[in-house]
Amino acid sequence: MAVTSVTPFSPSSGSAPSPVAWIAGVGASAGLGAALARRFAAEGFIVALTGRTQAQLDAVAGEIVAAGGRAHAFAGDVASEAEIHGIAQKTAALGPLTVAIFNAASAVRAPTLDLSVEQFTQAWRTSALGGFIFGHEALRGLLANSFEAGGARARGTLLFTGATAALRGKPPFAAFAAAKAALRSLSQSLAREFGPQGVHVAHVVIDGGIDGERLRNNAPQRVEQAGDDGLLQLEAIAESYWQLHVQHRSAWTQELDLRPFKEPF
Amino acid sequence: MAVTSVTPFSPSSGSAPSPVAWIAGVGASAGLGAALARRFAAEGFIVALTGRTQAQLDAVAGEIVAAGGRAHAFAGDVASEAEIHGIAQKTAALGPLTVAIFNAASAVRAPTLDLSVEQFTQAWRTSALGGFIFGHEALRGLLANSFEAGGARARGTLLFTGATAALRGKPPFAAFAAAKAALRSLSQSLAREFGPQGVHVAHVVIDGGIDGERLRNNAPQRVEQAGDDGLLQLEAIAESYWQLHVQHRSAWTQELDLRPFKEPF
Amino acid sequence: MAVTSVTPFSPSSGSAPSPVAWIAGVGASAGLGAALARRFAAEGFIVALTGRTQAQLDAVAGEIVAAGGRAHAFAGDVASEAEIHGIAQKTAALGPLTVAIFNAASAVRAPTLDLSVEQFTQAWRTSALGGFIFGHEALRGLLANSFEAGGARARGTLLFTGATAALRGKPPFAAFAAAKAALRSLSQSLAREFGPQGVHVAHVVIDGGIDGERLRNNAPQRVEQAGDDGLLQLEAIAESYWQLHVQHRSAWTQELDLRPFKEPF
Amino acid sequence: MAVTSVTPFSPSSGSAPSPVAWIAGVGASAGLGAALARRFAAEGFIVALTGRTQAQLDAVAGEIVAAGGRAHAFAGDVASEAEIHGIAQKTAALGPLTVAIFNAASAVRAPTLDLSVEQFTQAWRTSALGGFIFGHEALRGLLANSFEAGGARARGTLLFTGATAALRGKPPFAAFAAAKAALRSLSQSLAREFGPQGVHVAHVVIDGGIDGERLRNNAPQRVEQAGDDGLLQLEAIAESYWQLHVQHRSAWTQELDLRPFKEPF
Repeated sequence: MAVTSVTPFSPSSGSAPSPVAWIAGVGASAGLGAALARRFAAEGFIVALTGRTQAQLDAVAGEIVAAGGRAHAFAGDVASEAEIHGIAQKTAALGPLTVAIFNAASAVRAPTLDLSVEQFTQAWRTSALGGFIFGHEALRGLLANSFEAGGARARGTLLFTGATAALRGKPPFAAFAAAKAALRSLSQSLAREFGPQGVHVAHVVIDGGIDGERLRNNAPQRVEQAGDDGLLQLEAIAESYWQLHVQHRSAWTQELDLRPFKEPF
Repeated sequence: MAVTSVTPFSPSSGSAPSPVAWIAGVGASAGLGAALARRFAAEGFIVALTGRTQAQLDAVAGEIVAAGGRAHAFAGDVASEAEIHGIAQKTAALGPLTVAIFNAASAVRAPTLDLSVEQFTQAWRTSALGGFIFGHEALRGLLANSFEAGGARARGTLLFTGATAALRGKPPFAAFAAAKAALRSLSQSLAREFGPQGVHVAHVVIDGGIDGERLRNNAPQRVEQAGDDGLLQLEAIAESYWQLHVQHRSAWTQELDLRPFKEPF
Repeated sequence: MAVTSVTPFSPSSGSAPSPVAWIAGVGASAGLGAALARRFAAEGFIVALTGRTQAQLDAVAGEIVAAGGRAHAFAGDVASEAEIHGIAQKTAALGPLTVAIFNAASAVRAPTLDLSVEQFTQAWRTSALGGFIFGHEALRGLLANSFEAGGARARGTLLFTGATAALRGKPPFAAFAAAKAALRSLSQSLAREFGPQGVHVAHVVIDGGIDGERLRNNAPQRVEQAGDDGLLQLEAIAESYWQLHVQHRSAWTQELDLRPFKEPF
Repeated sequence: MAVTSVTPFSPSSGSAPSPVAWIAGVGASAGLGAALARRFAAEGFIVALTGRTQAQLDAVAGEIVAAGGRAHAFAGDVASEAEIHGIAQKTAALGPLTVAIFNAASAVRAPTLDLSVEQFTQAWRTSALGGFIFGHEALRGLLANSFEAGGARARGTLLFTGATAALRGKPPFAAFAAAKAALRSLSQSLAREFGPQGVHVAHVVIDGGIDGERLRNNAPQRVEQAGDDGLLQLEAIAESYWQLHVQHRSAWTQELDLRPFKEPF
């Protein structure tokens, strides 16, 4: 049977150059940043990977290339305007920026009075200031490209990885929660400002443990106890990011939560 | 390139009987209920349609059948336990219930002191009590069926159509908002209770006008002024419902908002 | 030292007739409704008490009168428009309605699939429909009286007792939570509509157990374990309601939460 | 008539030393910080005033002293750990710290892409980092003092001035909103951690314009148009802060909103 199709936003149709997805906060291959990169690469995107460790980025990019995809590794600190600006220019050279994902965070866990000013600041620099700097550079790239999609101008997608902590402050995560709350607020400001200009800005609330390298190394018992699908699978998260990108602009989501079916909330 | 695939929950693989999607709140063909029915029918579901008007249901079912799908029309009042129980039994006879969507609502618009007890009650009966009765019957059906999905038991999806009014009360929509707030609360209770049992319960916040028959008839000027994609397209909404259904159970969404790119919020 | 005083809204100054406070949801003497009545009576208000049980109302009224206050007991069902309308007229005869407090609720606790339609409906009738009917009658009374306060027209206060359940649905309280969510929504609609007309509408989120007769009878162990001030004291709650009433209209609160200092949240 | 009295938390009863209230974010005499200082001084507190400008602090302190109160002016930058630590020590020398109020903020207004990293950082330093540093020092002071209140240990009050922007990000206030969201999150973490230890931590959401020097200088038209009580009166706000302090610990408020009766929301 026929259903009127909603054409997803896709600048790559016809003879257009391949779209570029820039993903910041890429670490280990078994981490969310890498999974997001693989997902968009599999859809034909040229992916630009940003993270702190060149070796990790090279490994992730190498895997994507080995699988037939296109990936570039640009190491840098998201809290450094100069570095991110430089990377944005390299990314622009790859093709039209169409998707930008901010996935960086640094969690610190301590009773609040034990947190130092440095720790509180560092959490904010990585999650909130990083989101601001990355968002700035990404928006300049997204707004510079204009596609025809459904007879109108469209300009791509800017996604932020959030956490339940963004919704409520709770010890021992006071620093992380405050930084994530700031990032969530920023995502709302950007959605309200740039949505009408054709950029889809959304915030994803990850509520639960991610079945990735960090948890496997730091909390193997938790992984053990979670049981089947008790932790968020990397590919399952990446699928929801992809679906946000292909949403029709008449029905965009600004915020969604993702949690394992058995996670208490 | 290869990406480890996340198999969506699908009981229809192999020689299994076709899954059933039961959709309550189906009215005109150019309405959301009908669009949801078309979407799931196009995916191979047998759709059971419930709404107040048999003639409307027959028309929608007829279109789906004409397009090669399978659809059944069961008229009834969502606020009547007896009627909905009867329809649930007819639905069960069609095959394993796998998706249930509650889409009924009745908006009333008036200054709060002008609202009668009957109007306040009617808004609640359609949106909140209806959601409770439908949810009960649907859950009994969903829990009765057990599928193998990803090596574990899964039981389908229960979706509720919500509105921005669910998040904040505002005149002249006091009755509608209170009813929708109750429905949203119910969706949370059900998600917390039945998520761990394998039922994906989610609430969709529609924020903006829907480009359907109701608005075209009641507010043609608003449709005119909205411009391209300034109203939610029926197929775009239906696509997000479908994506909720196929989410992997390790990363379920409980609530998402949908709004046109240019909608102020 | 001198501080420019903010004169609380008080129609009783001068030779004006005593103001009336109408409180619905009055039960046992050691309950919140009774404590609210005592608090406003102590401030010089004529209090009108509404609840289901005439004997309980008479006892509470008797205590207030014995202590030198003025109280009247009008039994009735908050979900009955006719009864509440009749009581509103009796209340109007006592003097100018200045404060109205809706404190009725009926909690039911059960797994959601075990809740009957009657139980779900009853929870809504008491909390949400009752709030609507009471709010209607109260507003008509409040709007009928016009005071000079601070050089401008003021019209009194309408308060709703809420609960944490209003903010999130959770089993085994699905019916109670949905009803309280509806009531909270209603309080917002009324605040937005009647605030600019001079009526202060506010919603109080009680988060924790109340140290009253209900808990002492139903959960003595919980009272025992709570320790000093681990349950909300009746007089402490009543004080916050009073403070809401005397807030200056340039800085009104629409919602506040109240919880014991040691309550997890 | 007699009503069982709820004794407010008050360390100054008997021959105890006068309690100290430390208020950060004090500017002009016709500003909120100064109004809060006057309110607590009028209740017998020794007030310690912190703000950026010594001359302003001296003026406010001078007024309080002239009115018979006790006030000390300690200029410093809330984002400087060293300066705030030094002031905390001077404050401790005045007597037992019993109330601490963080009222600092710096608003910047611009389209988000026009905001510089310096502006985004500065907004965060003043509102969020300042709140963290002040909160740290204040908590150390509050926890060091232990009073008998109602037969149990109590330790005073820590209040944060928030804004509607804390609840949602919106241009042209992206930097201010993100900083205020972080501060609100911090207040929640502190409330959850230190409430059970006897410190009342609360966040006040100011929703509307304040009738103070800033608005009178920057937006005289807005003051004009607001009409009677259309802007928050300084004394009215201060009264609610005071009431938060004297709440009984069995019924503490963590967050309340304050808005003029005619303010749309």
